[in-house]
Amino acid sequence: MVKVGIINVTGYAGVELARLLRRHPEAELVSVTGRSEAGKKLGDVFPHLAQLGLTIEPEVAGSLDIVFSALPQVASAEAVAPLVRGGVKVVDISADFRLKDPQVYETWYKSVHPAPDLLEESVYGLTELNREEVAAASLVANPGCYPTGALLALAPLVQKGLVEHDVIIDSKSGVSGGGRELRRENHYSEVNENVQAYGLDGHRHLPEITQELARMTPQEDGFRVTFVPHLVPMTRGIFTTCYAWPVAGAFSEGKKGQQELAELYREFYKGEPFVKVASAPAQTKQTWGSNDCIVHPVLDRLTGRLVLTSCIDNLVKGAAGQAIQNMNLMFDLPETAGLDYPAIFP
Amino acid sequence: MVKVGIINVTGYAGVELARLLRRHPEAELVSVTGRSEAGKKLGDVFPHLAQLGLTIEPEVAGSLDIVFSALPQVASAEAVAPLVRGGVKVVDISADFRLKDPQVYETWYKSVHPAPDLLEESVYGLTELNREEVAAASLVANPGCYPTGALLALAPLVQKGLVEHDVIIDSKSGVSGGGRELRRENHYSEVNENVQAYGLDGHRHLPEITQELARMTPQEDGFRVTFVPHLVPMTRGIFTTCYAWPVAGAFSEGKKGQQELAELYREFYKGEPFVKVASAPAQTKQTWGSNDCIVHPVLDRLTGRLVLTSCIDNLVKGAAGQAIQNMNLMFDLPETAGLDYPAIFP
Amino acid sequence: MVKVGIINVTGYAGVELARLLRRHPEAELVSVTGRSEAGKKLGDVFPHLAQLGLTIEPEVAGSLDIVFSALPQVASAEAVAPLVRGGVKVVDISADFRLKDPQVYETWYKSVHPAPDLLEESVYGLTELNREEVAAASLVANPGCYPTGALLALAPLVQKGLVEHDVIIDSKSGVSGGGRELRRENHYSEVNENVQAYGLDGHRHLPEITQELARMTPQEDGFRVTFVPHLVPMTRGIFTTCYAWPVAGAFSEGKKGQQELAELYREFYKGEPFVKVASAPAQTKQTWGSNDCIVHPVLDRLTGRLVLTSCIDNLVKGAAGQAIQNMNLMFDLPETAGLDYPAIFP
Amino acid sequence: MVKVGIINVTGYAGVELARLLRRHPEAELVSVTGRSEAGKKLGDVFPHLAQLGLTIEPEVAGSLDIVFSALPQVASAEAVAPLVRGGVKVVDISADFRLKDPQVYETWYKSVHPAPDLLEESVYGLTELNREEVAAASLVANPGCYPTGALLALAPLVQKGLVEHDVIIDSKSGVSGGGRELRRENHYSEVNENVQAYGLDGHRHLPEITQELARMTPQEDGFRVTFVPHLVPMTRGIFTTCYAWPVAGAFSEGKKGQQELAELYREFYKGEPFVKVASAPAQTKQTWGSNDCIVHPVLDRLTGRLVLTSCIDNLVKGAAGQAIQNMNLMFDLPETAGLDYPAIFP
Repeated sequence: MVKVGIINVTGYAGVELARLLRRHPEAELVSVTGRSEAGKKLGDVFPHLAQLGLTIEPEVAGSLDIVFSALPQVASAEAVAPLVRGGVKVVDISADFRLKDPQVYETWYKSVHPAPDLLEESVYGLTELNREEVAAASLVANPGCYPTGALLALAPLVQKGLVEHDVIIDSKSGVSGGGRELRRENHYSEVNENVQAYGLDGHRHLPEITQELARMTPQEDGFRVTFVPHLVPMTRGIFTTCYAWPVAGAFSEGKKGQQELAELYREFYKGEPFVKVASAPAQTKQTWGSNDCIVHPVLDRLTGRLVLTSCIDNLVKGAAGQAIQNMNLMFDLPETAGLDYPAIFP
Repeated sequence: MVKVGIINVTGYAGVELARLLRRHPEAELVSVTGRSEAGKKLGDVFPHLAQLGLTIEPEVAGSLDIVFSALPQVASAEAVAPLVRGGVKVVDISADFRLKDPQVYETWYKSVHPAPDLLEESVYGLTELNREEVAAASLVANPGCYPTGALLALAPLVQKGLVEHDVIIDSKSGVSGGGRELRRENHYSEVNENVQAYGLDGHRHLPEITQELARMTPQEDGFRVTFVPHLVPMTRGIFTTCYAWPVAGAFSEGKKGQQELAELYREFYKGEPFVKVASAPAQTKQTWGSNDCIVHPVLDRLTGRLVLTSCIDNLVKGAAGQAIQNMNLMFDLPETAGLDYPAIFP
Repeated sequence: MVKVGIINVTGYAGVELARLLRRHPEAELVSVTGRSEAGKKLGDVFPHLAQLGLTIEPEVAGSLDIVFSALPQVASAEAVAPLVRGGVKVVDISADFRLKDPQVYETWYKSVHPAPDLLEESVYGLTELNREEVAAASLVANPGCYPTGALLALAPLVQKGLVEHDVIIDSKSGVSGGGRELRRENHYSEVNENVQAYGLDGHRHLPEITQELARMTPQEDGFRVTFVPHLVPMTRGIFTTCYAWPVAGAFSEGKKGQQELAELYREFYKGEPFVKVASAPAQTKQTWGSNDCIVHPVLDRLTGRLVLTSCIDNLVKGAAGQAIQNMNLMFDLPETAGLDYPAIFP
Repeated sequence: MVKVGIINVTGYAGVELARLLRRHPEAELVSVTGRSEAGKKLGDVFPHLAQLGLTIEPEVAGSLDIVFSALPQVASAEAVAPLVRGGVKVVDISADFRLKDPQVYETWYKSVHPAPDLLEESVYGLTELNREEVAAASLVANPGCYPTGALLALAPLVQKGLVEHDVIIDSKSGVSGGGRELRRENHYSEVNENVQAYGLDGHRHLPEITQELARMTPQEDGFRVTFVPHLVPMTRGIFTTCYAWPVAGAFSEGKKGQQELAELYREFYKGEPFVKVASAPAQTKQTWGSNDCIVHPVLDRLTGRLVLTSCIDNLVKGAAGQAIQNMNLMFDLPETAGLDYPAIFP
C-alpha cells in the first residue's frame, strides 16, 4: 500500500482527495493537516470521513511515500520543497510548479517563487498529455481546473497543427472552484440566480494555458489566447467553450468536415479511460463526482469556425481526481485505481 | 456473481440502481428495460453508464437471480408477480407490496391490488429493522423514501416503548423524489426559490408509516400520525423532523435526559454500517450520494418534547441503495457490498 | 414627503429598505450609513440603487422624520436610543426592542439591554395585529422574520381561544435570513443541495414568539412552544408549518370543520391588504419580492390536528416591507404606499 | 388609459406582462387568454395576480388599443394578423415578425410564414436602436432574449464601424428562457448542478442577430457570427460575452484604449433610462426583475481583442419589459412608465 499524506485537508481539494483515497485499493491515507483545525478529528470536521479514523495534525507525519499539497500558492511551495528534497514524492495542487519561468510566476502571482530550483524537475500533470513524464516524476504540478478543461478540448487540434494559434476560451465554473474560504463571491445569496464574468483583466490560469498550448507544438510556438472565466450558480463543474479557426484545408466543408473532426478526436483519445469524445452536446452533470472529461468538438456549419467544448468536475478531474491519477502513474498502479466511478445522476 | 435485472432503468431509482451495480463486486447487471427507450443503448440515454455496455430491452431477459422493479405502482406488481411465482427473487421499489392490507392499498392507491396473494410473503425492506426477514425473503417491498427517514428516526423510541403514540412528521424533500416524469411541480423555474407543502389531505406514504410504527410495538398498537411532506429546491436529500412526547418518566430532565436519549440511539444503532447517530445537528449534504442515514435525536430543553431528525439521500438509502442492501442480505453477501462509499462533499 | 434615514444600509434588510423606498410615493430616502463602506457611493456598492444618488455616511444626517435601523442587536439599541429621545421616530429591525422583559433579553442575547427605559414605549410592529399601537408609536420593534410567519399563521386561532396552548413551529427559511456577513453557513457550496435544522437548543426568536402568543390571549396565558428553524437552499422565503390541537369542540369533524377553519381565517384577515388566506397549499414563491403573507390553515382529516402554514418573503414582510408598512401607519399614509407590488413569478 | 390585451398570459412572458401592467400608471389590462386554462380566474392560476380580477378567456375581447401576443411562432402570426389588419396595435413577442425575409423564416422555423404581407410594416422592437420606427409602428416584433443582450453589447461598435464583421457570441441563459412547457431540459433534477451548450448546429436567434447587425451598418454589410447559447441553473438572467476584433487603429493600446472604448459606450448610451454602462464587471443579478441592460465593454489588455459583455433579465428587457417599453413609445407615454423599478437584490 502506498502511504499518503495530505497537506491542508480542510479545503475542497483536500477533502475530495480524502474521499477518493478512502476507497483507493492500493493507497492508504495516513496523515492529514489543516491549519485552523489541527487537533480535531477529521470526522468532527467532515462527518462523511469519520471512518478514516484520522486526526488533523499540524504537520504531515510518519513514513510517507507521497504527499498531496492542497495549500494556496507560495505556502504550498514552501511546504513541499523540503519534502521533495528529502525524497518524498509530491503532487502539488497549487499553482506553484506549473509555470516553468519564475519571472512569469512572479508577474502573475506577485511573489518571488519560493523554490525556483525545483521548477525544472517538476512535471505538468495533465495526465493524458504527459503520461510518461508523470510516471517518472518526483514532483508533479497538478493542473488548474480551467486549464484542464481547455487543454483537453484543444489538444488534438494543437498537437496535429490543425488550428490557428489564436484561441478564445470561454469557461463557466461552479462555485467550489473558488475554494472554501469565505468571500463575498461565494455567499449563497449573492451567487445564487447570478452569472458573472471575472478576471477580465487577466486570470492566473491564462499563462498556464498559453505555456502548455505552446509546449504541444513542435517549436513551442506561441498562442494568442483570450480567456474569460464565468461564475455560475452550481457547486461543481466546468463547462469550457473554445473558439478557433482551423488552418486552411484542415477539414472538408459541411458534414464531412464535422465527421473528420470527430474522428480526429476519437482517434486522439482512443483508449483513454477518462476522456470521452461525445457525439452529442455534453453536460457538466455527466461528469459530476467522476474523473471524466467529456469533449465535444464542433465545426460550425455556417462559419467553418471550430467550437470545442468540454465538461469536467472541477474538484475531480480538475483537482483531486487528476492528482490521484498522477499518483497512480508515479507508483506504477493501474491508472484508474480508486477513480473508476461513474458520474452521479441526477 | 449474482445476475441482476432492472425493470424501468430510465427512472431515477432505476438509473441509480445501475450506477451502484456498475461497481458492485459480486453482482452483475445483465438486463435492463425502459418503456419509452427500448432499443436504445443505455449509454445513449445516460452517457455516464455507457461502460455497462447494455441495451435497453422491452422485457428483462436472460437467466436472472434477482430483478429490481422501478416501475410505478400497479404496473410494478403486474410485472413482478410472474417473476416471483417463477422463482426469481424480486425487490420492488414501487409501493405495491408495502401495505399488508389490500383494502388499505385500494383506498390510498385507488386501484385493486394486482397480486394480493403475494402480500403475505412480501417483506418490508427497511433493512435495519427487518434484517432477518429480508435475508429469507423472495419478494422485498423496498420502503418509500419518506418512511425510511421517518422510521429510522423514530424506531429506537418506538421499539422501547418510550414515546407516546402520537407523532408529527415534517419532511423536506429534494425534487428527484418526485421522479423523472415531467410535471409542473418539477419544472426548474417553478421549483427553484420555492418551498411548498403538499399532500396536506393525506400523502400515500402515511399508511406505510403508520403500519410500520404499529408493527414495532408488542401488540401492534396504533399510532396517530400527522405527516406533512415539503418540497425544497434541491435535487437529492430528505430531512425529516419528527415531534413526539416521551412517555412519563422515560427520560430525566435537562442535559441528563439528552444524554440518555443519545445513548439510547447509539446503543440501538450500534454496529450498523449505514445508520449513524450524530451528536451535532445533521445535514442532508452529509449523506449526498451515499447509503447513510444520519439520525440526531433531541430532547427539547424547554418543553421536554422529543425532536427526532434524520437525513438520507432519497435515491440511495431512500430507494436504490437500500434495494441493493436488501439484495446483499438475500444473497448472503456482505451487507455493505457495492455501497461502502462516503458522501460527496461539497 | 417623509424624510427617511437608514442605519446600516449595507446589510440585506437595509438594502431592501432602500430598494422599496426608491419607489415610495410619499417618502424620500435622504441619508444612509454603513459601517465598512462609509464614504462610498451607494451605487458603487449596489449598482441597482445608483439612481438614488446617495453616499454612504458614517452617521445618519440631516433633518429626518424617521430612521430605520438595520444594525445587529445591542449596536442597534445603542444607535437609536439617542434618536428616539431626540424625537425622531424609529423602526428598529433588530431584536432590541421586541422582548418586553430585559431579563429575558439578557438571557437570550447574552447582553445587558442598552436602553431598558425605552422598552415600555416600544411597540411590537406586527402590523396586522397591533395596528393602532403602531400608528401611535415613536419606537417600533419590527418583528423577526420567523415570528412574523408563525404569528400570522396562528393568530386567528389564538385570539379566538380555539387552540390548545401547546404549539410546534417548524420553519424553513432561505439563506438571506442569516444576513450578509460571511459565515460557513452561507457559503454557496455548503448550503446548496442541503437542508439542515439549527437552533435545536433554542433559537432567539422563540421567546419573541412565546411572548406575542401570550399577549394575544385575554390573561396573557402562557404557551408551550417548540420552534425548529431549518435552512433550505434558496435566497428568499420562509415557509412555516405550525402544528397544534384545537380545543375540544372548536370545529366540526371532517370537511365541515375544514370549512369552519377556513372561514375563521378569511373573516379574521378580511380586508387586510397583505395577508391572504389561500384555499390551496401556498408556496413561498407566491410571495417572492412582495409584502404578502399567504396563510393556509388545514384541519388534518385523519387526526383532527391543526396544520397551519404560511409563506412570506423574509426580507419584505419579514423585515424591510413590514418596516415600511409600519412607517406608513406612523405617518398616517396609506398602509400600502410603496408596497403594493405583486410577487415576481417565476 | 391604454386598454391592453394579452394573448397567452399563461406562459412566462405573458404572466410577466400581466405583473408589470398591474402597476402601469397609464395602461389597463382588460383581457387575457390562455389556451389550456380558459375559463379559470387568473388568480387561481397565478395567485400573485388575483388582484387584477381577470378571467382567462378563449379570445381577447373588448375594445382594445393594443394586444401583446406571447404565443409560440406561427400560432402568433396567425392570431395577430387579423388584429393588425383591423387596426389594433400589436407587439408580438414571438419570432414571427422579426426576420424580414420570409425565406429565411421558412429555413429556420420550418414553416411557411402565415402573414408575409405584414413583414414589411413590422418594426424590430429593440427600443434603444429603433426608437423612432417603434413610435410610429402598428406592429412591433419584440426581439428575442439572446439578440437583445447581444445587440446592445455590440451596437456602439457596429454603428461606428469600429469592429471587424466577425463576431462570436457566447450566451449563458437561465431556464425560464426556455418557456413554461414541460420538457426534459427544464426538469429541475436535470438542470440543477448542470451547464450545457445547445443549438450548436444553429440556434434560431442567429439569423435575427445577423440581420440586425447588418442593418446597423451603412450598406447593410454582412456579419459572420458564431452564436453558442448555454443553459445555466438559474431561473432568470442572460449573460452575454461577445468576442471580436477592433478594426485597425480603432483604439489606442493599453489602458488608454480601454478608456476610449468605455467612453464610446457611455456616449452611445447617454441618457438611456435602461441601458447602463458599467465600469466594473456586471452580474445578471444586478438586473433581476428589472428592465435594465448593463453593458461592460473590455479591450483585452494582452491581445487587443474586444470582450463585450451584457446582462439582462430575459423575461423583462428580454421579453415583457421591452414589450411594454415599446408600447409606451407607440402611445406616446413616458418610455419608463410602469418599468421604473430597480432590480431585486439579493
